[in-house]
Amino acid sequence: MSTRTAAIVLIGDEILLGKVDDENARFLIGELRRRGVALRRITVVPDVVAEIAEAVREASARCDYVFTSGSVGPTHDDLTMQAIADAFARPIVRHPVVEKMIRDHYGEGLDERNLRMADLPEGAELVLPSSTMWPVPAVQNVYILPGIPALFRRKFLAIAERFSAAPFFVAAVYSAEDEGKIADALDAVVAEHASVQVGSYPKLDATDYRVKVTLESKDRAAVDAAVDALCARLGAAVVRVERAS
Amino acid sequence: MSTRTAAIVLIGDEILLGKVDDENARFLIGELRRRGVALRRITVVPDVVAEIAEAVREASARCDYVFTSGSVGPTHDDLTMQAIADAFARPIVRHPVVEKMIRDHYGEGLDERNLRMADLPEGAELVLPSSTMWPVPAVQNVYILPGIPALFRRKFLAIAERFSAAPFFVAAVYSAEDEGKIADALDAVVAEHASVQVGSYPKLDATDYRVKVTLESKDRAAVDAAVDALCARLGAAVVRVERAS
Repeated sequence: MSTRTAAIVLIGDEILLGKVDDENARFLIGELRRRGVALRRITVVPDVVAEIAEAVREASARCDYVFTSGSVGPTHDDLTMQAIADAFARPIVRHPVVEKMIRDHYGEGLDERNLRMADLPEGAELVLPSSTMWPVPAVQNVYILPGIPALFRRKFLAIAERFSAAPFFVAAVYSAEDEGKIADALDAVVAEHASVQVGSYPKLDATDYRVKVTLESKDRAAVDAAVDALCARLGAAVVRVERAS
Repeated sequence: MSTRTAAIVLIGDEILLGKVDDENARFLIGELRRRGVALRRITVVPDVVAEIAEAVREASARCDYVFTSGSVGPTHDDLTMQAIADAFARPIVRHPVVEKMIRDHYGEGLDERNLRMADLPEGAELVLPSSTMWPVPAVQNVYILPGIPALFRRKFLAIAERFSAAPFFVAAVYSAEDEGKIADALDAVVAEHASVQVGSYPKLDATDYRVKVTLESKDRAAVDAAVDALCARLGAAVVRVERAS
């Protein structure tokens, strides 16, 4: 079974400048994982149109889905729409459906500025889940989400169903020996169980183990077989095993 | 005065797979900022040599300093050295100084595997601060740091002095009006104070303001002037001001 891949592009001087901690990538890592989507890259770029455009173009070519976060408001530093338009060589046009939504929402209080939110790359798709008032614009495989964490989460969850796929199965084997001592065993298991992704994580301050080895795949039987093979090779060095659930 | 720029490349399936939260980029954001270095990009890449190499090469061309995190141990998934060698088209060679350090450290307990840690891209510089036992390898402008957060922090701080520059000055103006209402004022201040970087951050759940506007520069007087200009334009919408300190 083929695994869908994703990339996240965080647009925001505020993260690079240390004004706010990222919450959106962290949220999306868990959500994508839960849905069996393999996250392949996270890029944090500054509020510069050319850099956003380049990062989006690269990510779009590399992965099945791209999620952008931030820079979609009405102010001078809200550059994402222009950047995505540039990335796909499209003009920005006012989207009549979004324009009407904004006019209906603000009524008399409308500021012309607010209509900037209706200016989207030409041909943008509106993903319009029934559970939210506002659509998520998408251009090709790029889903454009707001940077404010509460809105980012709400909008992603509203459209999340379309990204669901078969889940991953993950197991862990904890070793009392350090990485240098178990590296040959790991190499052998990696070579013999190519469909299983093996990670090795030394822990300096754990009391009962030195290395946590993770084994994962969308094929549960393959994970189980790799765990058995690793345990056989490590013998008494195995402190404990967490099977894929 | 010219500002030095930096990029961070985090190597690690463990972050993309959601096994661990990033601590190293978050730490470095603050440390670089404190030292007046402008962080321009963060990239999180999987444990794939070609992708690491590409990210490092791009970052090295783009910024004055690049810091990599992770994948420098003795196991099959420790690929950073090979990737950085590839990025700069150099072979991997065993570094005699590091080899001796490893042999002295392990003595009789040496496993041949441990010597892999002495295999570095040809021509790598060893940054050898007096405060730590182990050097930080650097290739051109790329500083190679370990992924384990305690070691990452210790090693960066040991070599941090070489990255110190003039600090940034940051001020904040809090607005009671929302972004749409103050956007014209922001545009004007941005246009008139080009040396000052202006950010606009709406806050949904704050009780006493709607938008936090940040203004920053290495020139304190320029920040003060931009704050004054913005306050004059916003008038009664200003809830409070935090001057650059």
